Amino acid sequence: MRGSGWFPTLGLLAWFCCFGPRPVEAGKVLVLPVDGSHWLSMKILVKELVQRGHDVLVLVPETSLLIKSSENYRTEIYQVPYSKEDLDGNFNELKDGLFDKPPTMADIFINVERLVTFTTMQVSGCESLLRNQPLMTRLQEQGFEVVLTDPFLPCGSILSHLFNVPAVYFLRGLPCELDLKANQCPAPPSYVPMAFSGNSDVMNFPQRVKNMLMYFVQSYMCKIIYREFDRLVTRHMSDVQSYRELLSRGAFWLLRYDFTFEYPRPVMPNTAFIGGINCAKKAALPADLEEFVNGSGDDGFIVFTLGSMVENMPEQKAKEFFTAFGQVPQRVLWRYNGAVPENAPKNVKVMKWLPQNDLLAHPKAKVFITHGGTHGIYEGICNGVPMLMFPLFGDQGDNVNHLVHRGVAERLGIYDVTSEKVVAALKKMTHDKSYKEKIVKLSQINQDRPVAPLELSVFWTEFVMRHKGAEHLRVAAHDLNWFQYHSLDVIGFLAVVLLTVLWALLKCCSCCIRRCLRTGKKKKE
Amino acid sequence: MRGSGWFPTLGLLAWFCCFGPRPVEAGKVLVLPVDGSHWLSMKILVKELVQRGHDVLVLVPETSLLIKSSENYRTEIYQVPYSKEDLDGNFNELKDGLFDKPPTMADIFINVERLVTFTTMQVSGCESLLRNQPLMTRLQEQGFEVVLTDPFLPCGSILSHLFNVPAVYFLRGLPCELDLKANQCPAPPSYVPMAFSGNSDVMNFPQRVKNMLMYFVQSYMCKIIYREFDRLVTRHMSDVQSYRELLSRGAFWLLRYDFTFEYPRPVMPNTAFIGGINCAKKAALPADLEEFVNGSGDDGFIVFTLGSMVENMPEQKAKEFFTAFGQVPQRVLWRYNGAVPENAPKNVKVMKWLPQNDLLAHPKAKVFITHGGTHGIYEGICNGVPMLMFPLFGDQGDNVNHLVHRGVAERLGIYDVTSEKVVAALKKMTHDKSYKEKIVKLSQINQDRPVAPLELSVFWTEFVMRHKGAEHLRVAAHDLNWFQYHSLDVIGFLAVVLLTVLWALLKCCSCCIRRCLRTGKKKKE
Repeated sequence: MRGSGWFPTLGLLAWFCCFGPRPVEAGKVLVLPVDGSHWLSMKILVKELVQRGHDVLVLVPETSLLIKSSENYRTEIYQVPYSKEDLDGNFNELKDGLFDKPPTMADIFINVERLVTFTTMQVSGCESLLRNQPLMTRLQEQGFEVVLTDPFLPCGSILSHLFNVPAVYFLRGLPCELDLKANQCPAPPSYVPMAFSGNSDVMNFPQRVKNMLMYFVQSYMCKIIYREFDRLVTRHMSDVQSYRELLSRGAFWLLRYDFTFEYPRPVMPNTAFIGGINCAKKAALPADLEEFVNGSGDDGFIVFTLGSMVENMPEQKAKEFFTAFGQVPQRVLWRYNGAVPENAPKNVKVMKWLPQNDLLAHPKAKVFITHGGTHGIYEGICNGVPMLMFPLFGDQGDNVNHLVHRGVAERLGIYDVTSEKVVAALKKMTHDKSYKEKIVKLSQINQDRPVAPLELSVFWTEFVMRHKGAEHLRVAAHDLNWFQYHSLDVIGFLAVVLLTVLWALLKCCSCCIRRCLRTGKKKKE
Repeated sequence: MRGSGWFPTLGLLAWFCCFGPRPVEAGKVLVLPVDGSHWLSMKILVKELVQRGHDVLVLVPETSLLIKSSENYRTEIYQVPYSKEDLDGNFNELKDGLFDKPPTMADIFINVERLVTFTTMQVSGCESLLRNQPLMTRLQEQGFEVVLTDPFLPCGSILSHLFNVPAVYFLRGLPCELDLKANQCPAPPSYVPMAFSGNSDVMNFPQRVKNMLMYFVQSYMCKIIYREFDRLVTRHMSDVQSYRELLSRGAFWLLRYDFTFEYPRPVMPNTAFIGGINCAKKAALPADLEEFVNGSGDDGFIVFTLGSMVENMPEQKAKEFFTAFGQVPQRVLWRYNGAVPENAPKNVKVMKWLPQNDLLAHPKAKVFITHGGTHGIYEGICNGVPMLMFPLFGDQGDNVNHLVHRGVAERLGIYDVTSEKVVAALKKMTHDKSYKEKIVKLSQINQDRPVAPLELSVFWTEFVMRHKGAEHLRVAAHDLNWFQYHSLDVIGFLAVVLLTVLWALLKCCSCCIRRCLRTGKKKKE
């Protein structure tokens, strides 16, 4: 292993003195986050921007799941036409049947339906913000220099366009890959696996056929998923025809992944990869936790959470896990808000909240049992802890496939989990050293970057403020329609020219031959 | 203008302590450079690697133009079957007719022919290295960890493959875009202009037709240009079929441009943009030069060079320039090795060598007269000096077009240059403030990067050493043939299935209709 580390030489320092970014000055940032787990990553960047002296205003719907006011940043709360019960009910629908039924292909359509119901509610919230004229005027008057938003919901990019302020997108990806489409990023279906296809980047012929079919299915789904977004967009601006078109005007895309997790594929110049932004900062464990995990001896301990949005499960399921944990030598820390059976094994500590990243950073952490959200996955990767995964919904199935493909995780279904399956998987993962070796290697690669993800996010947000966008990174493809983009008009034109020339040649030849034959005939006569 | 600059926060420092690259340890680097101006940029990285404690060996052909031994790095000189006269003669051929004839479309073919003659000579040099068994054994025994090479010539990637050591490529680009092809980088001809097409990234229909035609021409030329490379490759390795295939195995590509100069387009994950690597370090001017340029008053001064390979021009041409310079208020510093007329104007200082970058960094530098090599162009961009350009050969015509398109340069032909044209262009560029404003803006964007180009180059070279390649950034497209890559087999299969289903449906329908009609007939009867 070689390397000079990252200690700046005199040459580098000279570069930063002569050139390099401009000196510190406070900028004005408007943030439109997406609720739920999406917010947890974005909050890290928001807090860092505040720390760097920027004036940050976060727009928060009065009814939300995880977004709260804070002393770290300013918030402005806007009214929405739905209650907390509506929101919770809507969200709980996403979890319907999760623990009982095996997933099927039809789930894709059910999930799309639920997603549309959820986003339609959010669209109504955005509509109410846009119609709140006093608030809109107040916002516009503040002279923001950048809108930081997660384009999973449309409100941020709409405000960016209405206020004529460049947008920085902060996202994991969008349903039916609208992010790639909007940013004109090529993704050949021959080696870029479609969401929900179960494919990796290496596909045989049937898998490539499936991938192509999924491509068509998703293109159709795009229309359904973004119908309400399109309507919202066209209601509020006359010069934009669709949400995709609006999205394409974004200045910069901060993507919450990298190629230790995703399969490598073409990328666009106006994107940066910030996967792992959430696992940089570590704190010491509270004394009781430190004592608990240190007491686990050589067997170490297991961390078990199903994400910020799922803190509970049916009693019967939980029992399977308790039984399983009673049969493994590791200690277990479990984020769980349900009933604990009286005879729960002594090696299990159940808590309502866990300092997940700090625990995974502990050298005795052996396995991370998780649902496969990118937040948790990156904490597993950063800290080099193999994962036992129970994908629940959304992109989690695909996420889990990526890690299983890399040999750093095992996958089980939550719907048919038994204590035997859990014990077998845990034993396999703790005895077979390859899981640990591979995730440590992945972790080393993930950490070995020229710029830390949080620093990179701040850099590009500030870049967009400094230069009022990132126009030099925007491809000219945005001004072409799909027919022109694929050069179909040019190919058609050249084909016509070619055929015409061939036809003319053929005509000439046949004319010549006929004349020759006639002359021959005449001569014979 | 906002920004926190690049001052690491505690969070960033924490990140580098916990994660970040490994500590310093010396690595072994084998360098196979390309002679001429290519070497000037690569030398900067080579010296920096030495400075960081790496053991660097540069392989130098005994006959070369600019590559010399140095106390900074180790060199190993190998015999080649051509003399300095052969090389100079061969190189001078490239310059044939440069100052007399206007360039035409046919020049492309002449240039290709000259290029092939030049590279064939270099291939013979490589052949002689590969057949030098004692040297090859000695090299292999040194256990290099990375091969740093410019793939404009094939020897570096061949050694990388034979020694089983990962290769880092350092280049401006390759003829007929073999770099993009080999690295599976999509470049849609609808908005990515082809070399020699004269197009920008925004094209109307005829320009897109021309671009597509150039695409076909270049695909054909690729075969001619790389024929000798292909033969060399297949002679020395049995498991590689072509130079393109060999190139595709490179671990990382350091590209000597960025999108302040090139038009934005899709990029691959295993590439980094290091345009401007050559203009980071500046020194104070020698006293006589400092006095000369400071004495230029408010009018400032002009820097004039035609690159490292062209130090002279026909006397008549030179006279036009002398006459022109006598008519402008600026002082002129001219790198020129020819005869100076007796009545040469007083404001012109002719020198055999110029500290080009240090001069351009001087605040009184007003215009940079240059041929449009990327080295000089980036010194112009970094320092924000508008350029008057006389493209000579190779990619220079395209380079110049890029800058003219951005409004920071004017283009003149060296073959029909007159003093009037030069005076008019210089007056235009010094009076019209837009040239300066635009190049300053371009310069600010070019300098505003998260990592300095030299630092980035060192980082990725060391990364490849630390991880024995950059496998996680290599796309799976490399394992597909072009038919599979474009999913033509899948599309064909789906078309057959669709047609079969349609045909079966049609058959069924016609059968039903016939039966219905027959029943109706019977009933009537």
